[in-house]
Amino acid sequence: MSTDTNADADANDESTSECGASTAKTGSESGGSKCGASKPTEERSASSGSKCGASTDDSSSSSSESKCGASSSSSSSGSKCGASSSSSKREKTKEKVGSTVDDFEGEPGKLTAVGLGPGHPEGMTERAKTALLEAEHIVGYTTYIELIPDEITEQADELYDTPMCGEVSRTEEAIDRTLAGNDVAIVGSGDPNVYALAGLALEILESKGATASMVGFEVVPGVPAAQSCAARLGAPLVNDTVSISLSDHLVPMPEIESRLHAAAKENFTITIYNPWSRKRRDNFQKACEILTTHRDPDTPVGIVHAAGREDEKVMITELSELEDLGESEIIDMTTTIVVGNEETYVWDDRMVTPRGYETKYDY
Amino acid sequence: MSTDTNADADANDESTSECGASTAKTGSESGGSKCGASKPTEERSASSGSKCGASTDDSSSSSSESKCGASSSSSSSGSKCGASSSSSKREKTKEKVGSTVDDFEGEPGKLTAVGLGPGHPEGMTERAKTALLEAEHIVGYTTYIELIPDEITEQADELYDTPMCGEVSRTEEAIDRTLAGNDVAIVGSGDPNVYALAGLALEILESKGATASMVGFEVVPGVPAAQSCAARLGAPLVNDTVSISLSDHLVPMPEIESRLHAAAKENFTITIYNPWSRKRRDNFQKACEILTTHRDPDTPVGIVHAAGREDEKVMITELSELEDLGESEIIDMTTTIVVGNEETYVWDDRMVTPRGYETKYDY
Repeated sequence: MSTDTNADADANDESTSECGASTAKTGSESGGSKCGASKPTEERSASSGSKCGASTDDSSSSSSESKCGASSSSSSSGSKCGASSSSSKREKTKEKVGSTVDDFEGEPGKLTAVGLGPGHPEGMTERAKTALLEAEHIVGYTTYIELIPDEITEQADELYDTPMCGEVSRTEEAIDRTLAGNDVAIVGSGDPNVYALAGLALEILESKGATASMVGFEVVPGVPAAQSCAARLGAPLVNDTVSISLSDHLVPMPEIESRLHAAAKENFTITIYNPWSRKRRDNFQKACEILTTHRDPDTPVGIVHAAGREDEKVMITELSELEDLGESEIIDMTTTIVVGNEETYVWDDRMVTPRGYETKYDY
Repeated sequence: MSTDTNADADANDESTSECGASTAKTGSESGGSKCGASKPTEERSASSGSKCGASTDDSSSSSSESKCGASSSSSSSGSKCGASSSSSKREKTKEKVGSTVDDFEGEPGKLTAVGLGPGHPEGMTERAKTALLEAEHIVGYTTYIELIPDEITEQADELYDTPMCGEVSRTEEAIDRTLAGNDVAIVGSGDPNVYALAGLALEILESKGATASMVGFEVVPGVPAAQSCAARLGAPLVNDTVSISLSDHLVPMPEIESRLHAAAKENFTITIYNPWSRKRRDNFQKACEILTTHRDPDTPVGIVHAAGREDEKVMITELSELEDLGESEIIDMTTTIVVGNEETYVWDDRMVTPRGYETKYDY
């Protein structure tokens, strides 16, 4: 994943998250759909003519007769958003996956988790492009779908995107569409293995009584945010390194703190994902305190906001300045932070972490 | 970097490493050059007609009159290989970078460190392709140069490759060619920030009295080996994770051991680079012992040999089996190993590390 999957993986503890889903027949306006503005899934799907899946409403679902995948939403009434198959309030109501493999007839399609890389089309691999072109349906967070070049999305039979939340229901939707016989790509920025949906896809496949093999499940790797951001900063990550997410939505904070202590003590460079959100100010503050316990105040720290996007910002600062920056615009859920190790230095506006060549070579 | 940069970064402590360099005018046969088979740099360069750099032989150098970059080899007599500007025995004789920025006249060119990704052309990003097409000279380890599609290498004025060692002299060569006015791409598999040459390039630029800005130094990220391999294994890396190289060529072994202890204790998933070489059997054995101290014997371990190459092999096994596999063909310098955390399980031949969704959602 890249910076925005941070937001994605974490959207449910964002106080501002607004949920909804839009399914667009290719060629219609799908990008930019926000809450309420997008038609309900079932309505659009009905007009799409694509192969669709089972409808196994659970008791609390207010949506029905979906033709694309099972509708598994828990109460979508009360959602801030008009649209259909994703639900808000997941923090409180556990979402139940409704349909199983037995609800689908015929041959399943192929499911591919595709990493888009840093967020601009040039950062995608050729293989990712091919996988998207081969997919009949492309499923993802709205922002990611918008990252895909038009010449690719225009080839798809359907796009299904949900804004800023709902990774579980979105992943289930992708799987139901696959089990219904469509070749589906589920997309995210960065890499599908980095705080992203490759694992969730496998978990949900299993829970439905399906297998990865029956849908030819494949992961197409992409350039992760750590690499995109490190490239912008120079060469901060050329030695042993750690990735830690500060989101305690899915991992308990004591575990995150313990990992930060260990990583800082052992002189790893550290890439911090999901550094800050309004509801998690304390996590960021705590992380800065832990890092300062083990590293010098002048340890170089690189901050990259919205890598590869129009509002990209890059800053190199010192560890002692980091905590105060938490309240500034440069640090939010689209930011990745790279903390240097004890040898990292700044030269000509670049962070450099020596690999160790200087111990063996004169140059 | 990907698996092969492992070999690259580490080639100097390989007992079998064979060194040499070849410079090819595009269109001539450059790939596959092995020791002795490639003509000396100076000979080929002389016929190339490209803009070339300074020649500042140090006293022990046997090469002279190089027109492409400074020749900085310490004694290349005694090298197993016929060719020129890289030297063997770096373990013992510190290599001296000869030329400085003052040895070059005129405007320098642009230097770009390009990550090729996993090792097949489809794994490259569009941006990497563009960067290579824009480069006048492409410099890299022979194996990496061979990974680049012909339609790209044919556009370059010159290719400069050295087999299986010499990353310092190769990087210096790239920089000298840049300072001499050429636009140069220095390439590696995977990502330039992952145990690769982005940092060394900056260090050598500094040592020459140049700056990163004067050569417009840029890093083009690629898909790292951890991601390419994780994709083949399923979803082993979707939570907090650590990368550790077992090569003690540039990092002392006690430091590596300490990091392994910390990573294993803190329940990180662990990607191991440079796992095994003939001269470092003990490191691999030691790593297995450390991991076994903290993790259950049945912890899933994924092994990917030569990801994206013709001889790719993928295996999922258990931690208790890992040590014995060190002596088998699947584990060598082109192998990446992914060790699951305490929650990682194997399902349908895939490794799955839960991100934690199961704690908040029913599916």
